[in-house]
Amino acid sequence: MRKSQSSANFSNKTALNKEGKNFIEFEEKVRYSETDQMGVAHNKNYFEWFEIGRTEYCRRNNIPYKDIEAQGYYLVVVEAFCKYKKPLRYDQEFFIRVFLKNITPKKVEFSYELVTKEEKKLIASGHTVHIVTNSKAKTCSLPPHIISSLKASLT
Amino acid sequence: MRKSQSSANFSNKTALNKEGKNFIEFEEKVRYSETDQMGVAHNKNYFEWFEIGRTEYCRRNNIPYKDIEAQGYYLVVVEAFCKYKKPLRYDQEFFIRVFLKNITPKKVEFSYELVTKEEKKLIASGHTVHIVTNSKAKTCSLPPHIISSLKASLT
Amino acid sequence: MRKSQSSANFSNKTALNKEGKNFIEFEEKVRYSETDQMGVAHNKNYFEWFEIGRTEYCRRNNIPYKDIEAQGYYLVVVEAFCKYKKPLRYDQEFFIRVFLKNITPKKVEFSYELVTKEEKKLIASGHTVHIVTNSKAKTCSLPPHIISSLKASLT
Amino acid sequence: MRKSQSSANFSNKTALNKEGKNFIEFEEKVRYSETDQMGVAHNKNYFEWFEIGRTEYCRRNNIPYKDIEAQGYYLVVVEAFCKYKKPLRYDQEFFIRVFLKNITPKKVEFSYELVTKEEKKLIASGHTVHIVTNSKAKTCSLPPHIISSLKASLT
Repeated sequence: MRKSQSSANFSNKTALNKEGKNFIEFEEKVRYSETDQMGVAHNKNYFEWFEIGRTEYCRRNNIPYKDIEAQGYYLVVVEAFCKYKKPLRYDQEFFIRVFLKNITPKKVEFSYELVTKEEKKLIASGHTVHIVTNSKAKTCSLPPHIISSLKASLT
Repeated sequence: MRKSQSSANFSNKTALNKEGKNFIEFEEKVRYSETDQMGVAHNKNYFEWFEIGRTEYCRRNNIPYKDIEAQGYYLVVVEAFCKYKKPLRYDQEFFIRVFLKNITPKKVEFSYELVTKEEKKLIASGHTVHIVTNSKAKTCSLPPHIISSLKASLT
Repeated sequence: MRKSQSSANFSNKTALNKEGKNFIEFEEKVRYSETDQMGVAHNKNYFEWFEIGRTEYCRRNNIPYKDIEAQGYYLVVVEAFCKYKKPLRYDQEFFIRVFLKNITPKKVEFSYELVTKEEKKLIASGHTVHIVTNSKAKTCSLPPHIISSLKASLT
Repeated sequence: MRKSQSSANFSNKTALNKEGKNFIEFEEKVRYSETDQMGVAHNKNYFEWFEIGRTEYCRRNNIPYKDIEAQGYYLVVVEAFCKYKKPLRYDQEFFIRVFLKNITPKKVEFSYELVTKEEKKLIASGHTVHIVTNSKAKTCSLPPHIISSLKASLT
């Protein structure tokens, strides 16, 4: 299992960054297929890393995203943004940090930071905005128990 | 729409290769994101090209694959093979050729050739084997009208 | 070759959208592998479509992106954004529109619209910001002939 | 870091499967973006998993693949095959097993098994064949120290 090696440093599953926000973090590595002919990770992969970040965020808050879908709720991406600061190379290890930026019954916002393994320098940052829909793609509201689970890291 | 520029040369939607097999062909181009740090198209993309080849094969046989799924039949990949002969570079144009290799109510086999645009030199060849399932992933049999549509290019 | 079917409607290689901006447009289709288990195109693919949009934009301005790299200039993505309005489904045909938003010797900005094939309804919109680097990843300036070629669609 | 949880069970970095072959194994999880509209992992991803398997194989043999490339040797895929036995679903954990099937100075063959986490049931198996080239894509021979490193798991 992908496990944050630094998780042992944290009293719990969250940490506090410079600005005092709670986040979860875990380690990833760049796959060969994620590089392009510039020799660095292609820009689209960051949005895939943001997504496995959300998956990990939900899991660590005891509400795995697959269970959210199993209960009939879908967090559909309506906005995605990434600012790229440093390149990532094949097999480079880095940390993905995930923050719950905002949550209401109808909308969830996550923000993300990718940082270098050793010095924790910023590689990229971004955010995604999600609306809540049911299995028929109609907008609906997240039930209170999912909202409080997702909020757990914030408190 | 992606259209084979050479299709105008063919009396119908199929052509005959050296070995006398019927096939459909159409043109594709290598996307930047499909290259890797070796500067060539990554090996996994060939299986994506095979797949858009199947989509095109079905469409030209008047049985679009989405209609096959809409009728409750799924062609699930159980085997995939590719032999790589020449590299493909960013923005390189090439042709995808698709052959129906074998078809029974429970199993369909396609083979593929990727060839250079000008001299039609072999870039890669391969095949996929598919079993037929229903929407609940249980094996089932393709109805006769789908089989005859898929066979149309062969006759 | 992927060709805009509607390109025949345009006097030249550009068109004018509602706001009076020049853009190029061409048609694409959703690949099966681009869908996810929600049954729609996955959010990361839009950034791949933006990229093939840039490739097409450069080609239609007679300065293919591969030639830009061959001359030693790289347009490195430093920012990417997408707003998703409507879902895209497997095999759905749509148009990609590419606008040159801003260009200086050191920075290039493109914006994009994805619209439905028939009614030209907005599926998604976004932008990317690029800095110019040389082959050693050092920032540098685009030469005047590349800038004027890229600007051609604007005038 | 992705770490095999079961690695602790092994005296060293390799294990012995039923047929008595040495292999390395590690755990992976299915990403959301790796699913398609059938609700299972798309067939092309298996070739990406095979590849991160090779990366891991080289690392555990103390010759990271990026070091092989840094020394001027490239293992270019000339053949890839996969047989799919069971579907993989979003977030499902599984093991990737990598075997060095054959190695000569000019050619390297790996085989792979994907197995379920708990019962170690076969999900998929396959192989890849690689020729050795230099940075100019000319075929060449692997030096003895790389061959012996890669062979280490076999003995």
